[in-house]
Amino acid sequence: MTLNPLMSQIIQIALQEDLGQGDLTTNLVVPHNLTARAKVLARKPLVLSGTLVFETVMRQVDPQIECRILFPDGSKLARGDMAIILEGPARSILAGERVALNFLMCLSGVATLTSAYVEAIGPDGPQLLDTRKTSPGLRGLVKTAVRHGGGKNHRSGLFDGILIKDNHVLAAGGVAQALALAKAKAPVGQKIEIEVETLAETLEALRGGADIILLDNMSPTELKKAVALAEEFFAPNPRAVILEASGGIDFESLSTYRDTGVDYISLGAITHSAPAADLALDFEPNAFGTDRSR
Amino acid sequence: MTLNPLMSQIIQIALQEDLGQGDLTTNLVVPHNLTARAKVLARKPLVLSGTLVFETVMRQVDPQIECRILFPDGSKLARGDMAIILEGPARSILAGERVALNFLMCLSGVATLTSAYVEAIGPDGPQLLDTRKTSPGLRGLVKTAVRHGGGKNHRSGLFDGILIKDNHVLAAGGVAQALALAKAKAPVGQKIEIEVETLAETLEALRGGADIILLDNMSPTELKKAVALAEEFFAPNPRAVILEASGGIDFESLSTYRDTGVDYISLGAITHSAPAADLALDFEPNAFGTDRSR
Amino acid sequence: MTLNPLMSQIIQIALQEDLGQGDLTTNLVVPHNLTARAKVLARKPLVLSGTLVFETVMRQVDPQIECRILFPDGSKLARGDMAIILEGPARSILAGERVALNFLMCLSGVATLTSAYVEAIGPDGPQLLDTRKTSPGLRGLVKTAVRHGGGKNHRSGLFDGILIKDNHVLAAGGVAQALALAKAKAPVGQKIEIEVETLAETLEALRGGADIILLDNMSPTELKKAVALAEEFFAPNPRAVILEASGGIDFESLSTYRDTGVDYISLGAITHSAPAADLALDFEPNAFGTDRSR
Amino acid sequence: MTLNPLMSQIIQIALQEDLGQGDLTTNLVVPHNLTARAKVLARKPLVLSGTLVFETVMRQVDPQIECRILFPDGSKLARGDMAIILEGPARSILAGERVALNFLMCLSGVATLTSAYVEAIGPDGPQLLDTRKTSPGLRGLVKTAVRHGGGKNHRSGLFDGILIKDNHVLAAGGVAQALALAKAKAPVGQKIEIEVETLAETLEALRGGADIILLDNMSPTELKKAVALAEEFFAPNPRAVILEASGGIDFESLSTYRDTGVDYISLGAITHSAPAADLALDFEPNAFGTDRSR
Amino acid sequence: MTLNPLMSQIIQIALQEDLGQGDLTTNLVVPHNLTARAKVLARKPLVLSGTLVFETVMRQVDPQIECRILFPDGSKLARGDMAIILEGPARSILAGERVALNFLMCLSGVATLTSAYVEAIGPDGPQLLDTRKTSPGLRGLVKTAVRHGGGKNHRSGLFDGILIKDNHVLAAGGVAQALALAKAKAPVGQKIEIEVETLAETLEALRGGADIILLDNMSPTELKKAVALAEEFFAPNPRAVILEASGGIDFESLSTYRDTGVDYISLGAITHSAPAADLALDFEPNAFGTDRSR
Amino acid sequence: MTLNPLMSQIIQIALQEDLGQGDLTTNLVVPHNLTARAKVLARKPLVLSGTLVFETVMRQVDPQIECRILFPDGSKLARGDMAIILEGPARSILAGERVALNFLMCLSGVATLTSAYVEAIGPDGPQLLDTRKTSPGLRGLVKTAVRHGGGKNHRSGLFDGILIKDNHVLAAGGVAQALALAKAKAPVGQKIEIEVETLAETLEALRGGADIILLDNMSPTELKKAVALAEEFFAPNPRAVILEASGGIDFESLSTYRDTGVDYISLGAITHSAPAADLALDFEPNAFGTDRSR
Repeated sequence: MTLNPLMSQIIQIALQEDLGQGDLTTNLVVPHNLTARAKVLARKPLVLSGTLVFETVMRQVDPQIECRILFPDGSKLARGDMAIILEGPARSILAGERVALNFLMCLSGVATLTSAYVEAIGPDGPQLLDTRKTSPGLRGLVKTAVRHGGGKNHRSGLFDGILIKDNHVLAAGGVAQALALAKAKAPVGQKIEIEVETLAETLEALRGGADIILLDNMSPTELKKAVALAEEFFAPNPRAVILEASGGIDFESLSTYRDTGVDYISLGAITHSAPAADLALDFEPNAFGTDRSR
Repeated sequence: MTLNPLMSQIIQIALQEDLGQGDLTTNLVVPHNLTARAKVLARKPLVLSGTLVFETVMRQVDPQIECRILFPDGSKLARGDMAIILEGPARSILAGERVALNFLMCLSGVATLTSAYVEAIGPDGPQLLDTRKTSPGLRGLVKTAVRHGGGKNHRSGLFDGILIKDNHVLAAGGVAQALALAKAKAPVGQKIEIEVETLAETLEALRGGADIILLDNMSPTELKKAVALAEEFFAPNPRAVILEASGGIDFESLSTYRDTGVDYISLGAITHSAPAADLALDFEPNAFGTDRSR
Repeated sequence: MTLNPLMSQIIQIALQEDLGQGDLTTNLVVPHNLTARAKVLARKPLVLSGTLVFETVMRQVDPQIECRILFPDGSKLARGDMAIILEGPARSILAGERVALNFLMCLSGVATLTSAYVEAIGPDGPQLLDTRKTSPGLRGLVKTAVRHGGGKNHRSGLFDGILIKDNHVLAAGGVAQALALAKAKAPVGQKIEIEVETLAETLEALRGGADIILLDNMSPTELKKAVALAEEFFAPNPRAVILEASGGIDFESLSTYRDTGVDYISLGAITHSAPAADLALDFEPNAFGTDRSR
Repeated sequence: MTLNPLMSQIIQIALQEDLGQGDLTTNLVVPHNLTARAKVLARKPLVLSGTLVFETVMRQVDPQIECRILFPDGSKLARGDMAIILEGPARSILAGERVALNFLMCLSGVATLTSAYVEAIGPDGPQLLDTRKTSPGLRGLVKTAVRHGGGKNHRSGLFDGILIKDNHVLAAGGVAQALALAKAKAPVGQKIEIEVETLAETLEALRGGADIILLDNMSPTELKKAVALAEEFFAPNPRAVILEASGGIDFESLSTYRDTGVDYISLGAITHSAPAADLALDFEPNAFGTDRSR
Repeated sequence: MTLNPLMSQIIQIALQEDLGQGDLTTNLVVPHNLTARAKVLARKPLVLSGTLVFETVMRQVDPQIECRILFPDGSKLARGDMAIILEGPARSILAGERVALNFLMCLSGVATLTSAYVEAIGPDGPQLLDTRKTSPGLRGLVKTAVRHGGGKNHRSGLFDGILIKDNHVLAAGGVAQALALAKAKAPVGQKIEIEVETLAETLEALRGGADIILLDNMSPTELKKAVALAEEFFAPNPRAVILEASGGIDFESLSTYRDTGVDYISLGAITHSAPAADLALDFEPNAFGTDRSR
Repeated sequence: MTLNPLMSQIIQIALQEDLGQGDLTTNLVVPHNLTARAKVLARKPLVLSGTLVFETVMRQVDPQIECRILFPDGSKLARGDMAIILEGPARSILAGERVALNFLMCLSGVATLTSAYVEAIGPDGPQLLDTRKTSPGLRGLVKTAVRHGGGKNHRSGLFDGILIKDNHVLAAGGVAQALALAKAKAPVGQKIEIEVETLAETLEALRGGADIILLDNMSPTELKKAVALAEEFFAPNPRAVILEASGGIDFESLSTYRDTGVDYISLGAITHSAPAADLALDFEPNAFGTDRSR
């Protein structure tokens, strides 16, 4: 991945909100020409994500900071594993530490939780999809973290995918009407997805020609019926519609959704409620030096 | 509270990352002059925070959206309570829905978790402080949410408070040296806080004249000893130093820290690991209208 | 339509590059409290597009300017038709005139040329698609102008549609390889389009499961063969692939492409080489007034 | 030339509107560490302009792209001439291709059309001037392209030159009044130009002391009379006023204006209606490589 | 005057650097719904400038602040005169006070000093011109303040006027060479000014056809000789060159330059060394109220 | 020091307001590939400040400009001392000259005036503090200049220090009330300062527990009484409050404040009324060269 302009902006903002007009403590206490080596350690097991942002934050603070990233994003780290080694001006490392760690802990948290869900589903079940329920300003980074955790991305935003949700259906006057409107004018390259809540609506969506159906808040039993309905609708040809389950699914109930026959399960929790991964940055006590050119 | 420029920027970015160059679905499916009424409901008990941002997001999308906020931030909502009523162009409400909810769910999540911790400490224990471990770009909003949950804010960033941490101590060559440097040149209006990990360091910090001592990763027993040490240091005068405990404290162990005698407990978890509060926006089925001027 | 942030930015830049640090002439010659009425006239027949931008530019210069738009975008205007009436401070109208007209003339130029092509194809031929060959900074506005002229939009940019072009095919090592890679990981909601130049490549694209095939630089005769190939490929089922022709098509040759059986014709010229439409803004000689409050 | 801040901004916007949150196709189909060599070819004869912007766009996308510009701006290229050779990461070249080409095709289009007009006037006729009728956001680049085509620039915007146009004259109450106001307070370093439409107004402008007179929409016969009037006005001294013709001039009629004796002809068409020059970027089939460091 | 984008930006920056992430004191001490009335008083005699910026700053902080400006810019105020009355939320007035006053004191300082110089020259002497030696970011505002003090503006920046200075002459290889280059390609609407230091150079500038000559660091005696030289050069026609004196002139020596015959005197001191005018903002003790809607 | 984002912004604005869309004169007169060496000289004695900004401005204009800074900021320069040597493209040095010098002259002016005041107080008197009365946009730079001149900084803005001023006291209803409110909720790390005007208020502030008292507009005699009052209040313990004098102090009266016993004197004049230091940039006549690569 590379950072797009929105990612650069959120990095700027995160640095501004923390650094403001300067780091009072460091400027008082740390010699301006002291150099240091520091390491970033996993304090609990985790799936790593965000190392590029970590490095970008540090180099934004000071291009003289060098980061050595020891594991690629997506790696599983054990407690105590060293993720990154930094070298550079001590003042700069301290100025960037918290912001860089906040990104890394947040994104690794998403990757770690996603990975736990993906493993709980197992290799033969439906694929795990994310949603747009992401921390404001971190959409692209969080979606990348989901991939690092083994999940798959749904659309990035409102601009690059069509998903007719319950409020749209209400506003359009029904599933059939909404689908008709979308199919008439949708951009050439876009598939059309619609959210339904009942088997009746599922049938309406099938008849309306939806490319993807989001089965919302259905129990595993209902989901199996919806899958059967779709199979039947296209028989004897193979099912020509993609089915996605969402709503009311948590880590405990996940296994009961595994064998419903849907193609995807989407889950807000992996992005909106992931606890931060536990990482810390520590100076190496015996690796200080002096940069005489500063 | 009012929104400062950084808050306005994060709102802009959050809208840009979701809306990009427009809402494909809504523009296809919802009539451009349809008006709607919608309500925002708590789907689980929560402490509300972020209503001003919610409204700002919506009005940024379309100044014709009117928001009626039914509870002030900091209110405890029960499951099913209606938090906000919106009226305005249906397309605009749908375009802003996810971003506005993402802020509201995230901030109410922080307020709700903070409130749980504050209640667990009880009215006579130390005050709960936040840290700088906040979701990038949301520092000011998250700190406000902490107050809505009954917590108290530590410094906003590196620019408005002095806190000499372990890495600073290492870089400066010891607790005494770091304190001496800080006291010599600190701005007139700033107190000086230092992090220590042992009783020996605590004594060094007391001797160095710290205004606040952050007792890091100490057990309740050690904390009591540190408090006693400080009392003794100033005896017979009253203890003229503020004591803050941090590290290794979670919801389960919290009660054992209550009676250690420290003034503050600071906790990263209330901001970096708060699950999103559960809120949803639903159109009212029978409240659609037409705005002929559009 | 509404203006997205990129559109607001291009308006800002256009005003800055023209106004810089102020309108020397107007400030010298026109009384600061003079009010005026002006009209925008079509000096040649045209299809109107850009009235919202026109108004936005003017109100950006001075919110006291009132614009009455007399025809909706997409209207065909005859020579001499009045498109817009403005009232407001004379200085402000003069300061905004050129920038507002530059947008209106450029966008109406695109709509006018598009409309001519659409008419030349006639109602029963393929639909006319635009490309990404648009004046830098005007992508969204120009694509809207294409719709005003009766054309249909292809993707907005690289971010919201998949189109494997010749250089991609080269880099991927062939049509089959490129399609296989795309199908393996493409986002759930996206169709896959690929550009081919020969019948052999067309067959490879059909076999690779492309959703849309862009037939590049083929003569009408070749296009008919490609269409036949696709029909045959899916027989006895209906053709389940969309076919788009592009390259080497101009106004003169257009009619020979009408009956090739393709679904779409895409044309760079309607956006990259449309002459500006001829519109002018004139003050009404007897409608000056004085705004005593200024 | 160097790029000023407005030029950097339009490049940013152009990249954002095309790339948005990333290049879907390329990221799916092209290996991340593939390197490529590409060439930019003229597909029709043209006058080159915009190579610096082309290179800037590419390096903005990825500083590892190297551009070798084979002709300086202003060069006449024959069909098939290679203008630029690029080397770098294949993904990055593909991501920047369209935006970079859009600038180059648009600006070379202006240079090419300007050059055609300049040649049509011939070396002994009046000089060709541009106007402010430029594509929004491209003012400075387009004016540079005019110079590359052999034309001369009029003022850059409202801020760096005084030109009293018909609407100003109306607002000021006449040619004499407008000139009197301008002369009284014009900045020390600015000449004063005024637009007139009749010989009577020309005389009024001469009497008012205009430094430059813009003769608008006059036929060649009228222009000759205006020139004679000005000569006579200053006789026996040499004519101490600059004369510029504008309006109603196109490529066909141009030659009839050549010998009217005016100093300048200004033409909106060279900037607002120049067709894009035809340039394409092609990968070299046998020049792919692998960058192991990525 | 109206504020151009650069002026809006400097206001933003000034507010950001003072307010940062909020006004600690006011938020602690002043009730959020308290309203107040305040007056801005001249504490010493001064020429007023900057009231529009003052008001803009205040309304930027809070659109509910109402400012009544009691004197137009350019007015001479006596000690104790009330310049502005404000009403609005007390917190907002306090948050904006310092920034708004900093602008007003700085700009009124420039107007006051300019006015003193203009009066010292008297009505029949040369006009007083400013220079580009202005506080960074305040160019346009300071130049307006110069006009309020009775001075006249030289060019705004490098972009809107030609002034060949000593370093240019050196780089070009002499006065004659520099003038020849400038005259060959200068934009149609620009006069050409050149700086000279001796009578010999003055003659060279006259011969080279300069429109304006800046006589740098000449004594009054030398200036008279330079004026005579110019008169003689054009005799018997009237002197067709503008003469400007600069360098080595201060308030004491000013009167000796009055009768040298030059058209303009330009002075850096009026903008780079003007002491701030003394203005203060005071709440009216008995005019507090409560805004129940806040 | 390093430049924070606000400093980078003011540099951008200063360059934009001067350079706009390009340097007319230099582009006409100076060969594009000419290189030059220039020196910056003190034309009067001064204390240097702003060399980093000077260099940043120059390198912003053109990264090929090399600056050699011959004295560190804070150095006392005699008339004729060379402060900086520059080498690079002549056009670029000329384009950046005025902006770079404007910063350097303004900041060195502040440092020079501050230094004069500090010397007038002498080594044993109170320390000299600055205020927030700084040129808009230059807060951080000016405060650094104050340190270069030997002064000490008060808070940077409203966000990083608590100072209850007269208007706050009025709004809060008295000294005691204001202090009570502030002490109840002030951030843990902040001391509380309050402004008083009489001995009675001083006593109220002492009783209210202020950490710092700003004694405003008191005569030296009153100040001594205030100091005595504070000593007495804490007796027999040492005085546990910081005392700062402000208002009505100028260079002449300064010595009479020296022995009042206050800890600090704060003075607006050192930042709002410092005359620019006199520095000039001159090309070396015999050091021009040619850069063939440009």
